[in-house]
Amino acid sequence: MSGEAFSEFDLIRRMTGKVRIFSEDLRIGIGDDCGVISADPSHDLLLTSDLFVEKVHFDRRWFSLEQIGGKALRASLSDIAAMGGRPGFSLVGFAFPVSLSPKEAETVYGGIRDAAEKFGVTLVGGDLSRTEKEILLDIMLLGKVGKGRAVLRSGARPGDQIFVSGSLGEAFLGLKVLELGLTGPDAEILSRRQRVPEPRIALGQALGEHGFASAMIDVSDGLSSDLGHLCQASGVGARIEMRALPVSEAYRNVCTRLSMDTAAGVLHGGEDYELLFTIPSDRLARFSQHEIPVPVSRIGEIVQDSEGVMVEFSDGRSRALLPQGFNHFLK
Amino acid sequence: MSGEAFSEFDLIRRMTGKVRIFSEDLRIGIGDDCGVISADPSHDLLLTSDLFVEKVHFDRRWFSLEQIGGKALRASLSDIAAMGGRPGFSLVGFAFPVSLSPKEAETVYGGIRDAAEKFGVTLVGGDLSRTEKEILLDIMLLGKVGKGRAVLRSGARPGDQIFVSGSLGEAFLGLKVLELGLTGPDAEILSRRQRVPEPRIALGQALGEHGFASAMIDVSDGLSSDLGHLCQASGVGARIEMRALPVSEAYRNVCTRLSMDTAAGVLHGGEDYELLFTIPSDRLARFSQHEIPVPVSRIGEIVQDSEGVMVEFSDGRSRALLPQGFNHFLK
Repeated sequence: MSGEAFSEFDLIRRMTGKVRIFSEDLRIGIGDDCGVISADPSHDLLLTSDLFVEKVHFDRRWFSLEQIGGKALRASLSDIAAMGGRPGFSLVGFAFPVSLSPKEAETVYGGIRDAAEKFGVTLVGGDLSRTEKEILLDIMLLGKVGKGRAVLRSGARPGDQIFVSGSLGEAFLGLKVLELGLTGPDAEILSRRQRVPEPRIALGQALGEHGFASAMIDVSDGLSSDLGHLCQASGVGARIEMRALPVSEAYRNVCTRLSMDTAAGVLHGGEDYELLFTIPSDRLARFSQHEIPVPVSRIGEIVQDSEGVMVEFSDGRSRALLPQGFNHFLK
Repeated sequence: MSGEAFSEFDLIRRMTGKVRIFSEDLRIGIGDDCGVISADPSHDLLLTSDLFVEKVHFDRRWFSLEQIGGKALRASLSDIAAMGGRPGFSLVGFAFPVSLSPKEAETVYGGIRDAAEKFGVTLVGGDLSRTEKEILLDIMLLGKVGKGRAVLRSGARPGDQIFVSGSLGEAFLGLKVLELGLTGPDAEILSRRQRVPEPRIALGQALGEHGFASAMIDVSDGLSSDLGHLCQASGVGARIEMRALPVSEAYRNVCTRLSMDTAAGVLHGGEDYELLFTIPSDRLARFSQHEIPVPVSRIGEIVQDSEGVMVEFSDGRSRALLPQGFNHFLK
């Protein structure tokens, strides 16, 4: 306890004293047995939760205490984005060891609060506890989406075009950059992608509310894994073109600097939190005319299930794209 | 990993394959980025989450793996009961060390699932991760309550009568029983109260839906702490009669056997998950005629804030009732 005795109630009061309210649906916030929220009948509710655990999801050597809190919330927000929803409320489960002082714990919570403010999330509760060693966060989010408008993983059909937002592999390479202690502008761009991911909330909403996307998932485990999940849920296959996969200049430069092939990070690297989605051909013209908040790239096409999930290289050869994304349980 | 390699996805599939659906509001359950639920405009939503951490909240010496999962959900359900709500959906954050085999992890999850079935809770998602040493569960619950019917901590007014359900101190003494290895029928009753708590869902609903209770909280930290929370939130004081506090025969017998005073466990022992609530005088007659699902005892009266929170002993003396309940951070 770093020599300072304190009560859970005091700590909760200190942490949550500055929490801001962003939703008119809130009736009762932090401080009772439950938060109370008005139901909005014009919307469906989205529910998701994500664990963010020291040594599994982050290493304190590469993350400030604020960044730990911020990334936990941002990663969870990406699941709301992937349904086409807007975030509303959050509950935070926060367990930490005695080696973390109350002030440090407040700093972690401050990182959550800052991210919550940025994305208009109202913190409505949660719980605190001790662990022996690790900082552990569990971020539960309640979001909403127009009635029947949630974009599922299961709606892709053969002929749909596959898109991905932003660029791939940067968060993966950003972790390498941090581990190796690389510096410079490119290294800085990549390490920021690892430490401060950007959930694609506005893009997800545009895709959902205008009915563009037939299926969607966020790229949290890596393209190979997440495209696999989408195809499995939809009962389809996919054909991806390697040369169409979006990579940034920073990514290319650092790969060169490290004598690394660019393909592995792009195909399998996790934590980019980009949106991977499919658009039926008859909606393409309308989609291409629509102003969207982030660049997106067409990377391939949905095919019959029997064709599997394949990636075509520029020399014309194809290979099965097997999931090689992140798996805590094989680490 | 106990020699067995497995993927997070396989484990999730195995754990959640048997999950049953209890709510017509569910649109999309486990398996997408978020669960999707229809909003019910005739109700408000309740949101709560509770951490349940090895060595802080439970010791594997006294709990089977099923009981760990079951107690985590039951404790969280008590918060829904304390608002007068009915539980609907749950997200489960579950982190565990490599020393727990996949089969053992499934057993913990099975305990959650069994409790969920008993109380009609639909599991809609969650997350799995590793920890270094401890089993950690974070149970998030979404419940509902008739619009404007949530019973808050803050509604108690001077003159309201204070009630508590069931009996007090048993879960606290049950832990002692387990630590000391006591056996026999009384010991069995108490250890069950510690291991398999009974959230007072039906009572909470009756109190909320019929508009009996002006304020309510569950006794999770101990009467002294939780009555303190209720009084603080309501801006009132309370006068409790020691002899009116409900204790069971099993509790009395085991106290005698251990040469323990009965008062400490009753006043400060946590984890009974009884409901502590207040009823305004003009609703008492109607309340006393109403069939309720659990015995309740009148234990005192709400007074002015300036009078503080006092307990009267049978010899006529009064003492301030200071919170001495459970606090992880002082352990």
